[in-house]
Amino acid sequence: MHEHTPRFSVAEHRGRVARLQEEMQAADIDALLLTTAADVFYVTGFLTRFWESPARPWFVVVPVAGAPVAVIPAIGEDLMRSTWVADIRTWDAPDPLDDGVSLLADTLAQLVPDKGAVGLPMGLETHLRMPIADFARITALIAPRKFVDATATVQRVREIKSPAEIAKIRATCDIANRAFARVPDFAQMGRPLDQVFRDFQISLLEEGADWVSYVAGGAGHGGYGDVISPASSRPLALGDVLMLDTGAVRDGYFCDFDRNFSIGPPDAAVTRAHAALYSATDVALERLVPGMTAAELFQILTDALLAEGATPGKGRLGHGLGITLTEWPSITAKDTTELREGMVLCIEPGVQIAPGKVLVHEENIVLRRDRPELLSARAPQQMPQLS
Amino acid sequence: MHEHTPRFSVAEHRGRVARLQEEMQAADIDALLLTTAADVFYVTGFLTRFWESPARPWFVVVPVAGAPVAVIPAIGEDLMRSTWVADIRTWDAPDPLDDGVSLLADTLAQLVPDKGAVGLPMGLETHLRMPIADFARITALIAPRKFVDATATVQRVREIKSPAEIAKIRATCDIANRAFARVPDFAQMGRPLDQVFRDFQISLLEEGADWVSYVAGGAGHGGYGDVISPASSRPLALGDVLMLDTGAVRDGYFCDFDRNFSIGPPDAAVTRAHAALYSATDVALERLVPGMTAAELFQILTDALLAEGATPGKGRLGHGLGITLTEWPSITAKDTTELREGMVLCIEPGVQIAPGKVLVHEENIVLRRDRPELLSARAPQQMPQLS
Repeated sequence: MHEHTPRFSVAEHRGRVARLQEEMQAADIDALLLTTAADVFYVTGFLTRFWESPARPWFVVVPVAGAPVAVIPAIGEDLMRSTWVADIRTWDAPDPLDDGVSLLADTLAQLVPDKGAVGLPMGLETHLRMPIADFARITALIAPRKFVDATATVQRVREIKSPAEIAKIRATCDIANRAFARVPDFAQMGRPLDQVFRDFQISLLEEGADWVSYVAGGAGHGGYGDVISPASSRPLALGDVLMLDTGAVRDGYFCDFDRNFSIGPPDAAVTRAHAALYSATDVALERLVPGMTAAELFQILTDALLAEGATPGKGRLGHGLGITLTEWPSITAKDTTELREGMVLCIEPGVQIAPGKVLVHEENIVLRRDRPELLSARAPQQMPQLS
Repeated sequence: MHEHTPRFSVAEHRGRVARLQEEMQAADIDALLLTTAADVFYVTGFLTRFWESPARPWFVVVPVAGAPVAVIPAIGEDLMRSTWVADIRTWDAPDPLDDGVSLLADTLAQLVPDKGAVGLPMGLETHLRMPIADFARITALIAPRKFVDATATVQRVREIKSPAEIAKIRATCDIANRAFARVPDFAQMGRPLDQVFRDFQISLLEEGADWVSYVAGGAGHGGYGDVISPASSRPLALGDVLMLDTGAVRDGYFCDFDRNFSIGPPDAAVTRAHAALYSATDVALERLVPGMTAAELFQILTDALLAEGATPGKGRLGHGLGITLTEWPSITAKDTTELREGMVLCIEPGVQIAPGKVLVHEENIVLRRDRPELLSARAPQQMPQLS
C-alpha cells in the first residue's frame, strides 16, 4: 500500500525510545502518554497534516520497557502501519459516547502496574491534546495509577537532536535560504505585502518545502511594528524595511529564521540597528558553548546589543527548533535550562529603533562542543536593498 | 500602526458575543474561558499564524455581561489592539515561574462571583490549549469558583454561521475551485505525487489563499489507500485515481473539499464508485433540511450508497466547517446534533472499491430552509481524465 520511504531508520526510532525510557526510569515513570503531533511523530514517525482537524485525539503510550503502543482513530491505522509501530489499537472516532477513553484506559491499565505512574507533559510550552473531560474520565478509570508531570522527561530527550534530525533541519534551512535569495524577484516598491507573503510561500514550495506552516513578517518605514501579524494589502514603499520570517517544513522538520530587506537605501537608524543585531549574533556565535544556560545566552545577546548602543527589544531572544516551529528552551532571563551539545536553536535578537518600530534578526544553529554551527546561511552583513 | 482592514465589523463581533452570552445565561455560566486559535479569533478577530508556536498560551475571557477581556503574551498586544477588544492584559511570556497564571486567575476572580462558574469547552472535538499543570493551579486559585463544561455553549453559537462568515467560506471555496481547475496543467502521468501536492498548494496561493493549512490526497490504481498521508514520490501511473483534498485559508476561514481525477480512462469499478458517490451526494442535496440530525444525514448517505450497490467506506461521512478544517457535528450514526439553518457542512461520502482501495467525494454546503446551497462548485459528474 505505502510507497513511503521511511524518514528515519527503525534504529533511530528505537534510540529515541531507549533515551525516553532511561529518563522514565530515572523519574520513576512507568509509561508516557503522548498526545501531540510532535511527540507522536518523534516516537513513531507518524506524519500527517491531518492534525489540523481538531476532531480526533491520538495517543501513543511508551512503556518504561518494551515497544510503544498506538491508540488511535481507525482513519489513521493505514498510515500508522507504515511506521515501525507494531501494536496499533484503533477505535471509530469521533465517538460521542466513548472517544477512545476505554481503549486508552485499558491500554494504560495493561502496561502500568496498579500503583504506577503515567507521565504526561504538563508544564511550560506543553498542552494536552484531548478533551479534558475525557482526561478526567481516564484519570478515574486508571486509579490508583496516577498521572505525573513528564515535561522534563520528554524535553531532555527531544531537545538533543540526532545527526539524522540535524540533517533534516539543515535541509529545510537550505530550502529557506534559496527562497530568501529569490525575494528580490518578487518584492519591489509598490507590491502589496500580502502578495509578497504569497510569493514567498510559493518560492518555499518551489524550492522543496512539503508545506509552509508559518510565514510572518512586517514592513514599515524605518522598522516594522509587530512580527506576528498576517500581511495587510499595503504596498511596499520607499524607505520601508521588509522582514520575512518562515517556518517551512520538509519531512516534518522546521526551519525558523527571518531576513530583512530595505526598499531603497536604509536610513541611518535602521543601518545602526542592523549592524547591532549582526554584531550581537556574531558575539553569540563566538561565545556560545555547551554548559551555558539559556539565561546566560540571553545576557550575552543583551550585553552585545547594549554595547552597540542599541535598545534590546522586549521578549525572548531565541528558542529551540525542530519538530515544531518553536521548542523550549526560551532564551530569556528566567530560563535556566542548560544548553547542551546537539541542541538546535534560533538565535533571535531584536532591537527597538523607536516606539512601535523594531528590527529582528534570526539564525538557526546547532550547538557543537567548540562553537555553534550555522544551519541557516549567515544573513548578509549589509541589509540587501530592493528596488 | 496597523493598516489591516478588519475582516468583520464590530457589530458582527458584538453579535457573536451577545449570542454566546445568551447561551451562558441559559447554562448558568458566569464567564467563558477560551484558549484555542479558533475560539479566540471568533470572539476577537485576532488572527495570526503564530499559534503554530506552542510556546505560549493565550486566553480570552467572555463575561456573561459586558465586553471580552484578552489575557495574552505581550508579543501579541499590538495585533490585539488592532481588534475591537479594549481590555487587554499582558505578561512577558514564556515565564517559567508564572506563565500568565496569576494574571488569568485575577481576571477570572474579578469577573466571576465567588461561587460562580467558569465555562470551558471540555467535550468532544475540543482541547484546552495551555499546560494542564497551570490549569490545575488556576483551578485552585479561583476556588470556590468552578470550571464547568461549556462545549455546547460555544458549539451551538459557532456552528451557525453569519452571512459574513458564509461569504468568507464561499470566497475560500472559490479559490479552491479555481485551483482544482488547474490540476490538469500540472498533474500528468509520470509526475511524482509529492510534486503534484506542491503544485496544488502553489495554485491555491496564486488563486488567493492566504495560506494552505491542509493538503492531503492519494493516488493508486483503481482507488487509493488512505486519505490522510503525506505524498510519496511515486509517479502518477496509467489507471491511477488521483485525489486531492484541501483546507486552504483566506481571512481565517477554511474550505474543505476534494476532487478525483483519473490518469487515463477509469476502470469500470472506479466509474461505478464515482457514480454512486455523485448520486448519494445528489440525494443528500435534495433531502437535507434543517431539523434533521447528523445521524439522519448519515443514514441518508449510507442508504443512497447501498441503493447504488456500493460499499460505504468506514468513518464519518462529513462534518462542520468554518474557522477550523473540521468542526462538529460529525456525520456519523452516533451524532444526534440537530442540523440547523446557517450551518456549513462538508458532505463527504466514501466508497470501498476493494480492500485498501477507496474513493471519497466531498462538497461544502450551507444549510438553508428549503435545500442546501453549494459553496463548492459541484464536482463534475464524470471523473475528469488527465493525460
